[in-house]
Amino acid sequence: MRFVETIEKKKAGKALSKAEIYHWIQGYCNGEIPDYQVSALCMAICFQGMDSQETAWLCEAMLHSGEQLDLSSIGGCICDKHSTGGVGDKTSLALAPMVAACGAKIAKMSGRGLGHTGGTLDKLESITSFRIVQNEQDFIRQVNEINLAIIGQSDRLVPADRLLYALRDVSGTVDSIPLIASSIMSKKLASGADTILLDVKYGEGAFMPTAEKAEELANAMIAIGKHFHKDTRAMITNMDQPLGMAIGNALEVKEAVAVLQGRGPHDVTQLCIEAGSIMLMQAKLADDKQTAQALLQEVIADGKAFTKLKEMCSCQGGDVNQLEHLELLPQAKHIIELPSKQSGYLSRLHAQKLGIAAMQLGAGRATKTDQIDHAAGIVLRHKVGDFIAQGEVLAEVHTNTELSNEWIEAFYDAVAYSDEKIEAQPLNAKIIDNG
Amino acid sequence: MRFVETIEKKKAGKALSKAEIYHWIQGYCNGEIPDYQVSALCMAICFQGMDSQETAWLCEAMLHSGEQLDLSSIGGCICDKHSTGGVGDKTSLALAPMVAACGAKIAKMSGRGLGHTGGTLDKLESITSFRIVQNEQDFIRQVNEINLAIIGQSDRLVPADRLLYALRDVSGTVDSIPLIASSIMSKKLASGADTILLDVKYGEGAFMPTAEKAEELANAMIAIGKHFHKDTRAMITNMDQPLGMAIGNALEVKEAVAVLQGRGPHDVTQLCIEAGSIMLMQAKLADDKQTAQALLQEVIADGKAFTKLKEMCSCQGGDVNQLEHLELLPQAKHIIELPSKQSGYLSRLHAQKLGIAAMQLGAGRATKTDQIDHAAGIVLRHKVGDFIAQGEVLAEVHTNTELSNEWIEAFYDAVAYSDEKIEAQPLNAKIIDNG
Repeated sequence: MRFVETIEKKKAGKALSKAEIYHWIQGYCNGEIPDYQVSALCMAICFQGMDSQETAWLCEAMLHSGEQLDLSSIGGCICDKHSTGGVGDKTSLALAPMVAACGAKIAKMSGRGLGHTGGTLDKLESITSFRIVQNEQDFIRQVNEINLAIIGQSDRLVPADRLLYALRDVSGTVDSIPLIASSIMSKKLASGADTILLDVKYGEGAFMPTAEKAEELANAMIAIGKHFHKDTRAMITNMDQPLGMAIGNALEVKEAVAVLQGRGPHDVTQLCIEAGSIMLMQAKLADDKQTAQALLQEVIADGKAFTKLKEMCSCQGGDVNQLEHLELLPQAKHIIELPSKQSGYLSRLHAQKLGIAAMQLGAGRATKTDQIDHAAGIVLRHKVGDFIAQGEVLAEVHTNTELSNEWIEAFYDAVAYSDEKIEAQPLNAKIIDNG
Repeated sequence: MRFVETIEKKKAGKALSKAEIYHWIQGYCNGEIPDYQVSALCMAICFQGMDSQETAWLCEAMLHSGEQLDLSSIGGCICDKHSTGGVGDKTSLALAPMVAACGAKIAKMSGRGLGHTGGTLDKLESITSFRIVQNEQDFIRQVNEINLAIIGQSDRLVPADRLLYALRDVSGTVDSIPLIASSIMSKKLASGADTILLDVKYGEGAFMPTAEKAEELANAMIAIGKHFHKDTRAMITNMDQPLGMAIGNALEVKEAVAVLQGRGPHDVTQLCIEAGSIMLMQAKLADDKQTAQALLQEVIADGKAFTKLKEMCSCQGGDVNQLEHLELLPQAKHIIELPSKQSGYLSRLHAQKLGIAAMQLGAGRATKTDQIDHAAGIVLRHKVGDFIAQGEVLAEVHTNTELSNEWIEAFYDAVAYSDEKIEAQPLNAKIIDNG
């Protein structure tokens, strides 16, 4: 099989066979097919796409490039959830303990943040000594004991994805729905969950620009889930403005704790209840949404959800005291209040721009090797739709370095006002069930 | 400048700037930009194209990647001609001496054949001791002395093209009009001619499938010619069936000699007269087509054109005796006559299939390192439109190896018949002048 024929076939808009797709992935992993052929193929896929059968085979071939976690020794339904990434997205930190407190098993592998989007691992590492590396036996034991563990992705899972993603990143071939879908799903499937809930975000701070594109990606991933007979569902959620108020690692841990204590911002809480209710239905711990939501409200109200987070923290070596006394979490040297420059209804808090601004403070990484400053970040005091008077505090900046004029200018560039009352985009645009 | 941004810009369908294009070509030549980024960009260009300004800059950047031949010490107008390649295309072997005999200067650099298409250099090397390597001074002196030299391309010209072409060949990115146009024109411009005639072929045995696509390529090359203020014209010619009767190196030299002696096949002769008349007008050696054609007929009739070929052969060390006694050229051990399997009008002699069949006999190369058997090839006895009776000889095969059944089957697969009289596609579809 000459690989250039596979490239030309896709370039001509034809569907690749299972054999061609496996040859590609195996040949690339073992070094027989060079980067320059794979990048050309990925570019052809950006233009010509892949149908759901091709995408499923690609995911399968990637999955088979490495080990797969065997979680069969965990009793009960193992639920996983994946967010395509956003600004201020601390959902997993609150959602996972909530769902685990209701009886679902969460054995989750998370990633780190890059660019303007944060990562769950970085947030957890704000807690002193929190271990995100665990061997398989400890991981399984912890989930059996307390229903919940969140650790880093093992390098032994889906090596094809690491190779392909690194190549796509430098060859302008990231934004292809079948390539994104197979990348995400191969990692989820390799980590052994029984059910998968996808939070596919769209808007200014998300990877997908529109709800339509997000839905297309969600459907591609659900089709892969079907191919593997996994209960896979999706939520399409808006990411025009940051989720919640806090952007930055320790700041987001605090906000997640607030959600678990029933005093979190409305949007994050709403998203956790919405997502959690789907996960409980997937786990067959609730028959309908109302029942599921009531269960989730209950574990917040009686403190079981927050206790679950502390249990996980304790099992993974983290300083639980910091969760009970949030002021013990890393604190920045300076907290600078930024006033509103005018009066009016906030019409925009551009998520990507604010994400980049937070990243520049040290809350995120411009490149993979950058160090995180866990204390750094931004806490908004208002959200889109709020009225704010000139001079009133719009946000506080947590920083260990001085703010440059360029930084302040870039911050204000993310903000826009309206004279008339406006409403923010609804957070949750759509839920896509399995069937 | 991050090269991935250049890739993404082209992927989004935007025009690249001169700086971006120079950065690409220079960076690729000096090893700063890796293969996998360039192959992804080439694939994006296959889908999004390049406008005539981008294409001209690309050609310019490629041209500047190496040396350029300075032919200013040759007196008079130096004419060049390029064919996009076909089966049985021995045009240059007859055309160049004809035009040179009329007073034009031909300082030509030719290429070798690959796949089903032949190359002028391989054909010339059928003549024992013919030298296709010459230093610049000898090349210029020969053109000054006898108006004519055909040699191999110097490696010092357009190194960017060699790198890019090798990459495009293995990354499925060959068939892009701006990439083809800039590749061809960069080599023509680097070799220093004053006027360029392009023979752009279309059809079964050509690179371009249709006359429209061929015209598009011709126009892209003419636009480049204009950018460089070179008189550039094009002919669009059909390559559904082989040109002339002979396919194979020594066999085509014989046919070229026949053309120069006024006894060549009609189509090759017609093409040489047509092309030659344009070249004489470009060289301002004739004011109009009729005058030019009369001059060309004259140098055939009085033997000056054939003498010119012999002069070139002699200057370049070849055995002139072989041109006067064609039976002294390499001869195959076996000449096998293949009969027509049925009676009827020949409706197809599939050029590509016959080109591949000849290649398999040793007349061409499947890969760049294959050795040529100069004696091997196919001589057709009939062309499309001819009536042939069952059992009558359709072609003779010149071979030094036994013919396999598969080979014979493949040969007949190139042939089709019609019960009704049909006419072949006219050879010369269109002439595109500079203006």
